[in-house]
Amino acid sequence: MKHLGRHVLAEICGCEFNILNDIKKVEELMVNAALSAGAEVRECVFHKFSPQGVSGVVVISESHLAIHTWPELGYAAVDVFTCGEKVNPWDACNYLSDHFCAKHMIAKELKRGMMPESYLKEAVNI
Amino acid sequence: MKHLGRHVLAEICGCEFNILNDIKKVEELMVNAALSAGAEVRECVFHKFSPQGVSGVVVISESHLAIHTWPELGYAAVDVFTCGEKVNPWDACNYLSDHFCAKHMIAKELKRGMMPESYLKEAVNI
Repeated sequence: MKHLGRHVLAEICGCEFNILNDIKKVEELMVNAALSAGAEVRECVFHKFSPQGVSGVVVISESHLAIHTWPELGYAAVDVFTCGEKVNPWDACNYLSDHFCAKHMIAKELKRGMMPESYLKEAVNI
Repeated sequence: MKHLGRHVLAEICGCEFNILNDIKKVEELMVNAALSAGAEVRECVFHKFSPQGVSGVVVISESHLAIHTWPELGYAAVDVFTCGEKVNPWDACNYLSDHFCAKHMIAKELKRGMMPESYLKEAVNI
């Protein structure tokens, strides 16, 4: 069995309120996290909630990065899905943890699209 | 311990090629999946790959739905993240599985933002 993609779900805790509540900063860091991991950015969409919190997604050629922040808890829920060998989703998560000035990150990786290797020969774009 | 959100990762298999390769159809079904689960749609972004495949995200007030399709494999990787009690992420996954004419779906739910209940009293917007 082989997989089509890697999906890392990261709980990033103890982050700075002012970073997690700044939509422009969160978007900038998410795009830079994608680029720093070697991804190609395709589309971005970010939304600011009232009174606080940001949600957003960066669609990359290799899949996506998504974030939801709770500035009042210093918490960001991040997930990074990548396909192919070029991009390491952990690089993007570590970049975000560093730039959110997080105290700690707990993350796990799940394999997506587990299929017999012979079947995956049909796949393009991976 | 209580959680801030529920994150369902769904492997949707045996889907129709023509649905998974049609960006307009995939976007329409993703938005309707969100609405059918009772979510409030905020932003959408979808991208069509060459020669085939679609990636896209629907940002909802309650978090997000994301999809990546491999039409040539009949496979869609879906994840649905929801906060609060109002929206059930499984409703959105089941909607998509039905409307992609899938042969089967394998999905798992992960809790996001697990924290002591006393700590979550600080949270807004949940």
